[in-house]
Amino acid sequence: MTNRLDVPAVLAALSLEEKAALLDGSDFWHTQPVERLGVPAVMVTDGPHGLRKQAEESDHLGLVASVPATCFPPAAGLASSWDTDLLHRVGAALAAECRASGVSVLLGPGVNMKRTPLCGRNFEYFSEDPLLAGELAVSLVDGIQENGVGTSLKHFAANNQETDRMTVSADVDERTLREIYLPAFERVVTKAQPWTVMCSYNRINGVYASEDPWLLTDVLRGDWGFDGLVVSDWGAVNERGAAVAAGLDLEMPSSGGGGTRRILDAVAAGRLSEEDVDRAATRVLTLVDRSLPALAEGGTFDVDAHHALAREAAVASAVLLKNEGGLLPLDPSAGGAIAVIGEFARSPRFQGAGSSQVNPTRVDSALDALRAALDGRREVTFAPGFVIESENADEALIEEAVRAAAAAEVAVVFLGLPPSYESEGYDRAHMNLPAHQLELLRAVAGVNERVVVVLSNGSVVSVADWQDDAAALLEGWLLGQAGGAATADLLLGAANPSGKLAETIPVRYEDNPTLGAFPGEHGHVRYGEGLLIGYRWYDAHRLPVAYPFGHGLSYTTFAYDDLSVSTHDDTVEVRLTVTNTGTRTGAEIVQVYVTDPDATVYRPDQELRAFTRVTLEPGRSAPVALTLDRRAFAFWNVAAGDWVVEGGEFGIRVGASSRDLRAEATVELKGDAITPPVTLESSVDAWLAHPAGGEWLRGALGDHGFGALLFDEHNGQMLRAIPLQRLSRFPGFPVTESDVEAAVARLN
Amino acid sequence: MTNRLDVPAVLAALSLEEKAALLDGSDFWHTQPVERLGVPAVMVTDGPHGLRKQAEESDHLGLVASVPATCFPPAAGLASSWDTDLLHRVGAALAAECRASGVSVLLGPGVNMKRTPLCGRNFEYFSEDPLLAGELAVSLVDGIQENGVGTSLKHFAANNQETDRMTVSADVDERTLREIYLPAFERVVTKAQPWTVMCSYNRINGVYASEDPWLLTDVLRGDWGFDGLVVSDWGAVNERGAAVAAGLDLEMPSSGGGGTRRILDAVAAGRLSEEDVDRAATRVLTLVDRSLPALAEGGTFDVDAHHALAREAAVASAVLLKNEGGLLPLDPSAGGAIAVIGEFARSPRFQGAGSSQVNPTRVDSALDALRAALDGRREVTFAPGFVIESENADEALIEEAVRAAAAAEVAVVFLGLPPSYESEGYDRAHMNLPAHQLELLRAVAGVNERVVVVLSNGSVVSVADWQDDAAALLEGWLLGQAGGAATADLLLGAANPSGKLAETIPVRYEDNPTLGAFPGEHGHVRYGEGLLIGYRWYDAHRLPVAYPFGHGLSYTTFAYDDLSVSTHDDTVEVRLTVTNTGTRTGAEIVQVYVTDPDATVYRPDQELRAFTRVTLEPGRSAPVALTLDRRAFAFWNVAAGDWVVEGGEFGIRVGASSRDLRAEATVELKGDAITPPVTLESSVDAWLAHPAGGEWLRGALGDHGFGALLFDEHNGQMLRAIPLQRLSRFPGFPVTESDVEAAVARLN
Repeated sequence: MTNRLDVPAVLAALSLEEKAALLDGSDFWHTQPVERLGVPAVMVTDGPHGLRKQAEESDHLGLVASVPATCFPPAAGLASSWDTDLLHRVGAALAAECRASGVSVLLGPGVNMKRTPLCGRNFEYFSEDPLLAGELAVSLVDGIQENGVGTSLKHFAANNQETDRMTVSADVDERTLREIYLPAFERVVTKAQPWTVMCSYNRINGVYASEDPWLLTDVLRGDWGFDGLVVSDWGAVNERGAAVAAGLDLEMPSSGGGGTRRILDAVAAGRLSEEDVDRAATRVLTLVDRSLPALAEGGTFDVDAHHALAREAAVASAVLLKNEGGLLPLDPSAGGAIAVIGEFARSPRFQGAGSSQVNPTRVDSALDALRAALDGRREVTFAPGFVIESENADEALIEEAVRAAAAAEVAVVFLGLPPSYESEGYDRAHMNLPAHQLELLRAVAGVNERVVVVLSNGSVVSVADWQDDAAALLEGWLLGQAGGAATADLLLGAANPSGKLAETIPVRYEDNPTLGAFPGEHGHVRYGEGLLIGYRWYDAHRLPVAYPFGHGLSYTTFAYDDLSVSTHDDTVEVRLTVTNTGTRTGAEIVQVYVTDPDATVYRPDQELRAFTRVTLEPGRSAPVALTLDRRAFAFWNVAAGDWVVEGGEFGIRVGASSRDLRAEATVELKGDAITPPVTLESSVDAWLAHPAGGEWLRGALGDHGFGALLFDEHNGQMLRAIPLQRLSRFPGFPVTESDVEAAVARLN
Repeated sequence: MTNRLDVPAVLAALSLEEKAALLDGSDFWHTQPVERLGVPAVMVTDGPHGLRKQAEESDHLGLVASVPATCFPPAAGLASSWDTDLLHRVGAALAAECRASGVSVLLGPGVNMKRTPLCGRNFEYFSEDPLLAGELAVSLVDGIQENGVGTSLKHFAANNQETDRMTVSADVDERTLREIYLPAFERVVTKAQPWTVMCSYNRINGVYASEDPWLLTDVLRGDWGFDGLVVSDWGAVNERGAAVAAGLDLEMPSSGGGGTRRILDAVAAGRLSEEDVDRAATRVLTLVDRSLPALAEGGTFDVDAHHALAREAAVASAVLLKNEGGLLPLDPSAGGAIAVIGEFARSPRFQGAGSSQVNPTRVDSALDALRAALDGRREVTFAPGFVIESENADEALIEEAVRAAAAAEVAVVFLGLPPSYESEGYDRAHMNLPAHQLELLRAVAGVNERVVVVLSNGSVVSVADWQDDAAALLEGWLLGQAGGAATADLLLGAANPSGKLAETIPVRYEDNPTLGAFPGEHGHVRYGEGLLIGYRWYDAHRLPVAYPFGHGLSYTTFAYDDLSVSTHDDTVEVRLTVTNTGTRTGAEIVQVYVTDPDATVYRPDQELRAFTRVTLEPGRSAPVALTLDRRAFAFWNVAAGDWVVEGGEFGIRVGASSRDLRAEATVELKGDAITPPVTLESSVDAWLAHPAGGEWLRGALGDHGFGALLFDEHNGQMLRAIPLQRLSRFPGFPVTESDVEAAVARLN
């Protein structure tokens, strides 16, 4: 038996001062111990795509040396797999590495939405779609927590940019929060109960997330039933007393005792209750208690097996955007050299900068991996082509690359964003690759028509203005430490691409929904586009995109047949048959989008509501069944303060991407019975639409001349849009203001 | 001498009850008299492009019969003239008609922005650009008020849609209000002092305009110096006491005494001061006093002269969008018939529906006018082609039209929006012409390549999907009662088109900035696009448009030469030479756009900052000089609460439209010295940028290891973005939180 804490007994034995002290870290990475009661400090460390446990000799901000750990693909890569099983296995591996290091909580995953392509931290986030981000994060959290290690779901909430992230207010309406920015958090909380949730730095509608009782208590615990601990992002606490009262339990890193003093001051001043302190301390003790079994059992992990898993994850994370003439896969036994061009082939960029930066156990380069895989069957030449962090073209390197390309049967050009372009802590300045890389590409394409481009970038880059220079285009995102080997697998056909875009690649930066609003100014950023981020925006505006959300090619092809839908109350079963119509085994990601054409509120043209991944041998078919629950059809009704399904017809679209829809069906749902109440602000039309209100009003108007004007063909529509109460004040109107007030009182 | 009121003496003689009563109308159209003190009731009536004075036998809502008056083109038409002199003369004519009818205040003009093409009342508004709307309205107001009649600048403010107009909250940030939605009001108030301002129905950020002290007092009177009276839109009062306190002086129409009781209740309850009532009553008495001279003098007007002015205004209001192969003007002495097609040629739509609907003194049809002008020189055939308010094509009418077109040398097709499509009181459902009209056009274009389309529409319609069927396209908007004759003048070359678009014609509805936000739901409409309405949006998103803001063709051509700019402090003189390079006399509207590429806040790509209209005979040149004052370069700095010019380079673009820019120059302005203060939320970078703060911080950090990390090439940028106060709490940081607090106190 593991030694566990008797949390209530420990709490009862603690003084107020000790309880307040528990709400502060003891250093950068540990909770506060209570040695006299046997409460140990537990360790939390950065993640989430690998362990970043600092070595003993830490720098002041905990940003440098860390113990070696497997660097899996960051979320931008993993998300493109749409593979919940894979995420679950990666989670289990991460937990094993945590256990081996005595780490109790891995600080992740991050499920913020990719609102703008320029967010410097997009590489740590999954998607522009909350369902996809949420489902993938659920699997990752389950994989970690099933192995006795906790997670920290972050950054809660609306932390969608790095610019002014410590203070900026995300000004966003409630429906948008509920439908776009919160659902990924909601899904993870309700389905996987992360041990902790990390509040974000920013403000939301003027209130710091770290001291927002609506966010941290009403929504997180009240609406979603969260039973874990809320921890601050490192340095996110503003006013410590208000934070505890709002539901922020643990301040990290240690405030050096300042936070504890402020809590005690707040209690003494009556601004904070001791019950609030008890509640927060209980959550810290519960976190320690949950950590004890794994700490007692410890563990080891297999570095090679984890590297192999990282390679499998990287294979699944890459997205084949384009493959003209079937240029890929390259035939390992064809004649002619493969010219590998671009420094990234030799010096891979496989993760992003900032708190998530892992010290990898090893790193594969694509160049080495290609040479190893070909084992001399084809010549592989290499030219770096450019210096990664340079701003200027190096003509000698370009000439060398052109010579290599001219002499080769095919040129594989590795382009990407320099590390300085994207990082935690700041946003990108633009969406372009460095100009000198594109100059190289043009030069190479000028001498060889068979050009494959492999991209390394944590967030989306413009491709429209140069992709004609590439016959094939493999979006590699950041693929983790085994990305080089995975890339070789994909280029040579040892593996079949199956990733699909978790974010739209727009034609131009100017097409994106945040233009003019991002990154905000004077402390505020307006989420003016509302629900319309990502594909929701591009669809609504009928904008062409370079590659749509959900797009990704394979070396085989798939057919979609036999779509059928059936309803049970407000749940819909979607069934279809998917067939591998090509000549290679491959995996297809099937996507289901829902439309609500008759909604009384604005709804996006279509929204992803289910997906699955099916692997098929050539010529084989498989039945696919997906369930859409009522939430798939609901919108957040601000007036009702709840999710509402409006009865009527919904469209069910099934496809291989958001713009490659293969079949559509409609369903009729009963929905929720909603009768909007009549109020003093209700228009005449709203009164007439109300069963009892309409009956009363028609009777009261009788055949009065003024009443008849309300139905006049010229002005009736204008007049009926006026609130009845206002009309009742007009001279001669047959219903008085007190009649209206009485009717409102009677009918509600 | 006119009998004038001694306003202070009258006020002193009034009881509180009498003063409160003065704040209410006496009926639909009159203020309250005080007979014992010789204070008459004065009359206000709808406008603004003509008088809508109700006949004695009014209906209940004052919407039907009115005395005959000249119907000038509504604002959508007049605005396309960009002709301040014309607007001034129209204003004078309107005043003469008011004087002849004993009307003291004409309820207009409306200077709301055309935020969405679908606003049902766009025909009553001028533009999507606040400078253009403001300048034109200034001239109209001056023209009216110089003749002793008042105006009512409306609808103040942010009343940019009809849907839920009585209650909807326009949720819009302050900078957007100050730079887009308020400046037209500001310009009219500061330059023309309208006697009254009419508050709008809607709420702004949750507060009814009718009871918003920030809007009605702080901004209107405090910032702009308004010295007139604020009147409610008809029925816009919500809570009467709050409205008086906020600065709403006069409730219209009469509340039947209810409003007076509520004012007295509010005073009795201490929610409203008697001083507030006195102030409002003084304003009502001052309005009466201002009205007395014209009432005493009376006046008459020349119906024929006003009709001629309406015709001149209509000529200036039409915009020639397209004229392939110089199809227009039609040669009056050419051979072959002119087929006039479309019911609108016979039954013109020349104004919009709702409160502005004038009972015209006469109405010209284009068909009659063409026949009269040609006087038998060319045959004019006519086929109605469609029934205006029908939803379906009438095949017999189409066949008749096709026969006429086939037999003619040219077909002039009159298309437009049926009256039911747009009106005060509701918004349009879409941006399209009726499908059956386009079916007619296709059929006509199938038999005759020489097709001219003349449009009648109060707000912009889609043209992209059918305009290939027309070689020439004349946008007629709504041209008032003389529009038919004006159209004939333009078609036959008796007049030369000179109008330019005051609103962009987008390619598709889906391109417009309000998609997904308009018309809002559950009582709120999000102005998510911020500053980016109209051309500001289409420019920012690099969207093609059907016709850009400022576009309009002439039967002649103009050259722009010799652009020069000179600066005097923050004022810029722009000089250029415009030459008529064609063969007809014509007028050119010269536009000046300013760009601020180096701004520290987001700024639109370019903004209209000056314009002028120059008439030239063929071959003649004229120097054009325009002045840009400092406001042309300023933005509303939310933090400073003021207009700020940032020193640096600005671009000055001169052109014939927003996308036909002929020359550009740059100027360097000194701008305003702004040093943002350091606060507890200031980032390290902000501290370092502050002269004294930076010196202190550098000294305090010294060569401490933690300080050195702030300048680390990998993580420095991220760390310096953190507020210094937050960093000061981190364990081991060399500056303490109290050091930071002391520095903030010392430096500010």
